[in-house]
Amino acid sequence: MLIVMHHHATKEQVDQVIAAVKTMGLTAEPIPGSLRTAIGVLGNQGYVDDSTIRTLPGVRETIHVSKPYKMASRDFHPKASVIDVSGVKFGDGQRPVIIAGPCSIETEEQMMVAAKEVKAGGARMLRGGAYKPRTGPHSFQGLGLEGLKYLQQAGRAYDLPVVTEVMRIEQLDTVCQYADMLQIGARNMQNFDLLKEVGKTRHPVLLKRGMSATIEEFLAAAEYILAEGNKNVVLCERGIRTFEKATRNTLDLSVVPLIREMSHLPIIVDPSHATGKRMLVPVMTKAALVAGAHGVMMEVHPNPALALCDGAQSLSGEYFSELMEEIDQLLDFLGYRD
Amino acid sequence: MLIVMHHHATKEQVDQVIAAVKTMGLTAEPIPGSLRTAIGVLGNQGYVDDSTIRTLPGVRETIHVSKPYKMASRDFHPKASVIDVSGVKFGDGQRPVIIAGPCSIETEEQMMVAAKEVKAGGARMLRGGAYKPRTGPHSFQGLGLEGLKYLQQAGRAYDLPVVTEVMRIEQLDTVCQYADMLQIGARNMQNFDLLKEVGKTRHPVLLKRGMSATIEEFLAAAEYILAEGNKNVVLCERGIRTFEKATRNTLDLSVVPLIREMSHLPIIVDPSHATGKRMLVPVMTKAALVAGAHGVMMEVHPNPALALCDGAQSLSGEYFSELMEEIDQLLDFLGYRD
Amino acid sequence: MLIVMHHHATKEQVDQVIAAVKTMGLTAEPIPGSLRTAIGVLGNQGYVDDSTIRTLPGVRETIHVSKPYKMASRDFHPKASVIDVSGVKFGDGQRPVIIAGPCSIETEEQMMVAAKEVKAGGARMLRGGAYKPRTGPHSFQGLGLEGLKYLQQAGRAYDLPVVTEVMRIEQLDTVCQYADMLQIGARNMQNFDLLKEVGKTRHPVLLKRGMSATIEEFLAAAEYILAEGNKNVVLCERGIRTFEKATRNTLDLSVVPLIREMSHLPIIVDPSHATGKRMLVPVMTKAALVAGAHGVMMEVHPNPALALCDGAQSLSGEYFSELMEEIDQLLDFLGYRD
Amino acid sequence: MLIVMHHHATKEQVDQVIAAVKTMGLTAEPIPGSLRTAIGVLGNQGYVDDSTIRTLPGVRETIHVSKPYKMASRDFHPKASVIDVSGVKFGDGQRPVIIAGPCSIETEEQMMVAAKEVKAGGARMLRGGAYKPRTGPHSFQGLGLEGLKYLQQAGRAYDLPVVTEVMRIEQLDTVCQYADMLQIGARNMQNFDLLKEVGKTRHPVLLKRGMSATIEEFLAAAEYILAEGNKNVVLCERGIRTFEKATRNTLDLSVVPLIREMSHLPIIVDPSHATGKRMLVPVMTKAALVAGAHGVMMEVHPNPALALCDGAQSLSGEYFSELMEEIDQLLDFLGYRD
Repeated sequence: MLIVMHHHATKEQVDQVIAAVKTMGLTAEPIPGSLRTAIGVLGNQGYVDDSTIRTLPGVRETIHVSKPYKMASRDFHPKASVIDVSGVKFGDGQRPVIIAGPCSIETEEQMMVAAKEVKAGGARMLRGGAYKPRTGPHSFQGLGLEGLKYLQQAGRAYDLPVVTEVMRIEQLDTVCQYADMLQIGARNMQNFDLLKEVGKTRHPVLLKRGMSATIEEFLAAAEYILAEGNKNVVLCERGIRTFEKATRNTLDLSVVPLIREMSHLPIIVDPSHATGKRMLVPVMTKAALVAGAHGVMMEVHPNPALALCDGAQSLSGEYFSELMEEIDQLLDFLGYRD
Repeated sequence: MLIVMHHHATKEQVDQVIAAVKTMGLTAEPIPGSLRTAIGVLGNQGYVDDSTIRTLPGVRETIHVSKPYKMASRDFHPKASVIDVSGVKFGDGQRPVIIAGPCSIETEEQMMVAAKEVKAGGARMLRGGAYKPRTGPHSFQGLGLEGLKYLQQAGRAYDLPVVTEVMRIEQLDTVCQYADMLQIGARNMQNFDLLKEVGKTRHPVLLKRGMSATIEEFLAAAEYILAEGNKNVVLCERGIRTFEKATRNTLDLSVVPLIREMSHLPIIVDPSHATGKRMLVPVMTKAALVAGAHGVMMEVHPNPALALCDGAQSLSGEYFSELMEEIDQLLDFLGYRD
Repeated sequence: MLIVMHHHATKEQVDQVIAAVKTMGLTAEPIPGSLRTAIGVLGNQGYVDDSTIRTLPGVRETIHVSKPYKMASRDFHPKASVIDVSGVKFGDGQRPVIIAGPCSIETEEQMMVAAKEVKAGGARMLRGGAYKPRTGPHSFQGLGLEGLKYLQQAGRAYDLPVVTEVMRIEQLDTVCQYADMLQIGARNMQNFDLLKEVGKTRHPVLLKRGMSATIEEFLAAAEYILAEGNKNVVLCERGIRTFEKATRNTLDLSVVPLIREMSHLPIIVDPSHATGKRMLVPVMTKAALVAGAHGVMMEVHPNPALALCDGAQSLSGEYFSELMEEIDQLLDFLGYRD
Repeated sequence: MLIVMHHHATKEQVDQVIAAVKTMGLTAEPIPGSLRTAIGVLGNQGYVDDSTIRTLPGVRETIHVSKPYKMASRDFHPKASVIDVSGVKFGDGQRPVIIAGPCSIETEEQMMVAAKEVKAGGARMLRGGAYKPRTGPHSFQGLGLEGLKYLQQAGRAYDLPVVTEVMRIEQLDTVCQYADMLQIGARNMQNFDLLKEVGKTRHPVLLKRGMSATIEEFLAAAEYILAEGNKNVVLCERGIRTFEKATRNTLDLSVVPLIREMSHLPIIVDPSHATGKRMLVPVMTKAALVAGAHGVMMEVHPNPALALCDGAQSLSGEYFSELMEEIDQLLDFLGYRD
């Protein structure tokens, strides 16, 4: 950490800051400049809580050099992680994984048809929501346990591991029984209690980026899970909130190469939620794969026009198959082996 | 809802949309324009789920006229609500409430001193966090139940109702025992399961705006609580995330008069978290009160330089007392009676 | 336009609005709903100025159906435009154009070396800044006319059309003499006087998106140029400002397919300025091409470590050549002919 | 400046960075930490251009301690500036100045009525736009020179100094003849050529914050004017662009106390443009004054419902007079002398 003093800070104020750093068990090294003094803080093994330092008289600002995550950082874990979800592998050297399925689980039949269609298209995992976060209380909220059963059954019928969102701690045991991978939604990215409990399982986790989370906060959220001992974390970019209104969110694809440099964890992309527009999904899927994504999750629904949720961003099964042919050719071109 | 067709949409496409609206039990009224056709949707009693409509061929966009909240809207509840928290009242016609106390509950003594100081200054409620949401897992996470006891004890000793954050459903019963008001933090504003459970109690709730929540989403979150039968909701603006880096968040004070027009629920402001800078708290507190806030919540700590959390934005008790004198004069000037 | 009345608006207020619409020469069609009345405005040939309507009593909001651009819209110009810059073509059916060169023109020799290198790599246009917008007044501001001469000379020597930024109207004649294409920088996207003057020339224009411009504003800026008679506009996405700090801006690639649907104008991408990080340029270039960009502009400098400006995002000539081989393979794969 | 090396940077890389700093004529002081090395840069008299340093191998990031402005900083100019505009003073110790008038100058009569009304209400300066920046080319663009004459005439008739926007360098001489103060609009805050030319005059300048400008960039823009010798700069906050759609922009009032601490230049607020809603103007005006603004600029129009521009945010003259009575009482309460 670097502590920057005000231009007019007195020697006493500098000394008081140095003393405060020492009481934290750290070393303070003053760096006198021509305009102001800065104080380097040494000896910390990670992120320093600067809240007391920032209050001292004469301090203009503190600048963090360490990051609020360590286990998620590639600095301390140079080798890329490969995460195995019931045999499907996410990570460097693996062919990117396409996860597909409806936004919401609606009926047993819908899930069986969806699973059949996405399997036929070449998806390697099945998605579907049993518990749905909805902005307003009067919208369809999901089938719950019944939905989980349909999901598992459809996944088994077509040999597709399944991923579904867990929204609260009480659901965790149940979801672990039915799903191969736990999804933490964007709205829960900083639900730290949920992260910790998920970290106590050894279930693979798909952690979605919060809609206004910085990359630093995203990795710090992953750190909560890793710190509890669960190393099976896959990250998912799903768009961030900006002033632009033409898309639901702004898909931030540069996060893919950045995360690949900063972290050893795999990163996938969800273009359906990011854009909210079906017509953008195919092209952004391909762009994500070229950007280095370890997978893509997209919404496919047997009949998008009748979907109870997010139909506008869902692809039909037929269209999905055509898209998957193009994706396969692209992955071959990019040098991924089957 | 208004459905806007593409410029080149065919008559068949328009007819298909009209038919789809009718199957939803609603009325469709085409509005032919010189450049394109729009279709008005009538007969709905609230927000219409447009996901299936948006997928139909020829549809350019759908525009919502109704809002995703109704019970929180002043349209349907013109009379301003007054919320009573163990005798302290928030709302129109009431003198704005100052809530003060430390960010985190640290020790029994700290809470007793803090309560004494904020009472002496003129605060009418005591705050303190027992469960803390922290960005990284290696920071101080709060005292939990022990903290709740200290908080309640300090509040009783100085006759101050207390408010504290509840982060997960399992904590709810316990927090209800010890606190007069439940705080839902910004990170949980869209933790819908938590909102629903809080809605099943009749405990007063302080609902903080999510850091990237629109006003519409903020009121829709309140709707979750109201829809379960709990009418005791006070809203709290605490800053939104923008590109500006000089403050922790950007305090959005225009939300105060806007919410007062759009909703009947009281709205208070938290300048400590919004700005993250102690020196900005006094002046933004006064600005918030002039903007019409029904209260202000601020961080006061017996010794900010030693605070375990957010010391940089805390005021000392002595300074708080001086500030409260100014605030009292301002409230008198604004015409609020004691 | 749709005018939405307040829930409690009176019949008199509705009538007053209808009368106001009629005085604008337009038709008003009331759409009575169960909760409120809306009023459709018909007969307009384009965007309606709603500022007087919004002030009338009882009006809650106005919703625009028409857009503030028409000549830039694909609705009124369905055929994609192909823009020719001294023989290099941008647009549908054309192989995407790679524009390369240094951020700033520094010396005659630097430009000759840069031109040689980017030509060898396969770039089809040369870029270089003679007039530089710099955040602070104490930074290098560009060589001006001398730089323009170096740029033109280097472009001619290697048969590369050149593009350079014009920052003020007085520079326009001079820049037109030396450059094949005029660049309007992000900071000038809403410098409407400059847009109009550029619109009076017939020089091809590269219009960069403002760093907080919506797509609607971006196309409305292009409309300024088109409305003056200059049809030779190429759009350029260069990143938008968000809360994320890890990149200089957030590259918004979904704008590429969106603009291709909404407008007939070609759209290219500048990954160097968008990300500010050299290591992200190659991968985001490829992602942009897969997303459908009609070209990419990137910074290449003979010796990035000695660049007077933006060296951190420049590629060396050698590295550029390697990247171009990969890009060529990608373009072949995507089906573009040479 | 602080240079932070990668965790795995080699000693050779550190040495190369130190050498590069020395070639810039500066001193490098390595700060070895337990996790990584940082290098302090000393000896600079201001902002350091880091573009070459950031490109060197092993460098993770550079952190600026100095700011890209110096003459605008309170560090180097501790005494608050008072700016005199034809006898009206902006700054510490002065009663805040209310500037009022229509958005656009429309007719001679309109300006005379407006001037009469705002004078009667107690405004001390008159505003009005002769050259208008409009998002689309088909909107009313202003009266130009004719408007300037109406403005000057109305100002003289009622003894009100006038302020109006200058949009391009060619207008500068003319605007200086007719106006007491030059306004630089938000869209031109980084039109550096215009800033420099304005800096060469000695006319007072009202510099509006760009809609996505950080405070640092805002002060750096002021530096452009100051650096040319024109010390008469008044800053103006007018809202920033965020994801919130309920207001036109988000008024960032905390910028007022922050600028007062960081700079010696006066800062005023424009609540009309910031919110875009007439009903929010009065309350946000008062909040701005309580926050410490040295003035407020607001739109007043003889007949808002007939305004050619921005009628929705304009106040009528009658309403303005009522508001001014409240403002005067507030300013008296705040201790400002007449």
